[in-house]
Amino acid sequence: MSNNQVDVKTQQRIRASFDAQGLMSHLGAKLTVLKPGEARIELPYREELTQHMGYFHAGATSSIADPAGGFAGVTLFPKGSTVLTVEFKINLIAPAQGDYLEAVGKVVRSGRTLTVCGLEVFGVVGNEKTLVAVGQQTLIRVQEP
Amino acid sequence: MSNNQVDVKTQQRIRASFDAQGLMSHLGAKLTVLKPGEARIELPYREELTQHMGYFHAGATSSIADPAGGFAGVTLFPKGSTVLTVEFKINLIAPAQGDYLEAVGKVVRSGRTLTVCGLEVFGVVGNEKTLVAVGQQTLIRVQEP
Amino acid sequence: MSNNQVDVKTQQRIRASFDAQGLMSHLGAKLTVLKPGEARIELPYREELTQHMGYFHAGATSSIADPAGGFAGVTLFPKGSTVLTVEFKINLIAPAQGDYLEAVGKVVRSGRTLTVCGLEVFGVVGNEKTLVAVGQQTLIRVQEP
Amino acid sequence: MSNNQVDVKTQQRIRASFDAQGLMSHLGAKLTVLKPGEARIELPYREELTQHMGYFHAGATSSIADPAGGFAGVTLFPKGSTVLTVEFKINLIAPAQGDYLEAVGKVVRSGRTLTVCGLEVFGVVGNEKTLVAVGQQTLIRVQEP
Repeated sequence: MSNNQVDVKTQQRIRASFDAQGLMSHLGAKLTVLKPGEARIELPYREELTQHMGYFHAGATSSIADPAGGFAGVTLFPKGSTVLTVEFKINLIAPAQGDYLEAVGKVVRSGRTLTVCGLEVFGVVGNEKTLVAVGQQTLIRVQEP
Repeated sequence: MSNNQVDVKTQQRIRASFDAQGLMSHLGAKLTVLKPGEARIELPYREELTQHMGYFHAGATSSIADPAGGFAGVTLFPKGSTVLTVEFKINLIAPAQGDYLEAVGKVVRSGRTLTVCGLEVFGVVGNEKTLVAVGQQTLIRVQEP
Repeated sequence: MSNNQVDVKTQQRIRASFDAQGLMSHLGAKLTVLKPGEARIELPYREELTQHMGYFHAGATSSIADPAGGFAGVTLFPKGSTVLTVEFKINLIAPAQGDYLEAVGKVVRSGRTLTVCGLEVFGVVGNEKTLVAVGQQTLIRVQEP
Repeated sequence: MSNNQVDVKTQQRIRASFDAQGLMSHLGAKLTVLKPGEARIELPYREELTQHMGYFHAGATSSIADPAGGFAGVTLFPKGSTVLTVEFKINLIAPAQGDYLEAVGKVVRSGRTLTVCGLEVFGVVGNEKTLVAVGQQTLIRVQEP
């Protein structure tokens, strides 16, 4: 949405919010990139994240795709605003395998009330990235409690 | 789809598949109900499942909604078939809170290749159930490896 | 959502809104049922509504499913409010054929800002109804201009 | 998906299929671009396509977005194959207004059975294009009847 950086205060707010999400540390997810209108989350492979065939579970894939979009939205919000997911839709287009997954959330449209994001999840082995899921998400901006 | 029971072999296949999903035990999820065209999964509350406001994370909600639909589909499959999620869409309509979440997957249409399920997730406190999420899912039937 | 009737003023507002939608009369759609939290729209078969195999086009199916949900939402709104569709998702589960299609929109959750509806479309031949599409929709309430 | 052209036979098949869709001519839609993995459809403004506030109806927007994705999928299919829409999801992110709408369907993943497309719809006034809708779609390849 812009080539500027996310200001330090907003970065701190987002990182504090990420750290306050019990699920993220329980899964082992890391917030790696924050740019205006974009956020990335990585999730290293472990057996605790698998479905019955040994790939990353669709639940694990979704668990990082959704907040990647959410935080992407927050990068464009004014101070005092946070986000709730209204809904998302995700297509699982290839087996989710690799050393880790990388979820990328990008804002498509940032409105006063509603934000729409595109979601992508890649399976990463060494330098090779394979697109394993694509999604689309609607967020609503709310006042921080 | 039917008022018969799921035959014992199919139940065993599904429970073995559930037990082989590392994510389900890592989250603490339990497969509670299997009926023809329906499956239910419960997820007791713990801090490791939360988002930043202390509710169940949308990722946790999705992580049980998706396999509830998937196993609902499998209850209607012949021996030797298993399932992959093509895509799902979920609306988060109320704060996901309670002693536990209950995800209910129900088959809307079971085809030769594709199955469509409706998904519901409830937050349960004592005897009170609140609908916290609704979804719709497409599955594809594949041969067991 | 209630077993009361939609009050006459709200019915008039909704019917005026339906009549003001050029697309509805161009397709030949009729608003047939208005109940609190529910609306139904019928669309008689004609060649002008088909896809390449002679069935109703997915665009025709969607064109009545979306406003059925929208008007279902409006039945629960206070005076002075109208609706915009935020997004919808629709699964086309059987060939859309019949003397006419009937779209049914039902409110799943009516909030202050957002409403979530379930959508169903049936193909009707004589007394026989076949479910041809299911969907899920998010609406936003806005002030009437 | 490729920078080659769509071969003439495939173009003819797609154009014949488009011309056989009664809804497309009833709405006044034109198939404008066919590239490997991409198709574009334009829809000039007329009152017969409007919702109650005078914008293009979401049904009109969807009616060109869905086949834009479908034909994008077919550009990559072998002879003898055609397409059915499994499902699509669309976010309506701005008032759909302009001299015409342009729907763009692009293949994200073309598989043996399933194809996933991204959908965009623009409102066009003179040289200015505004993104009014984004969507995501699942297609299934079937044998031509």
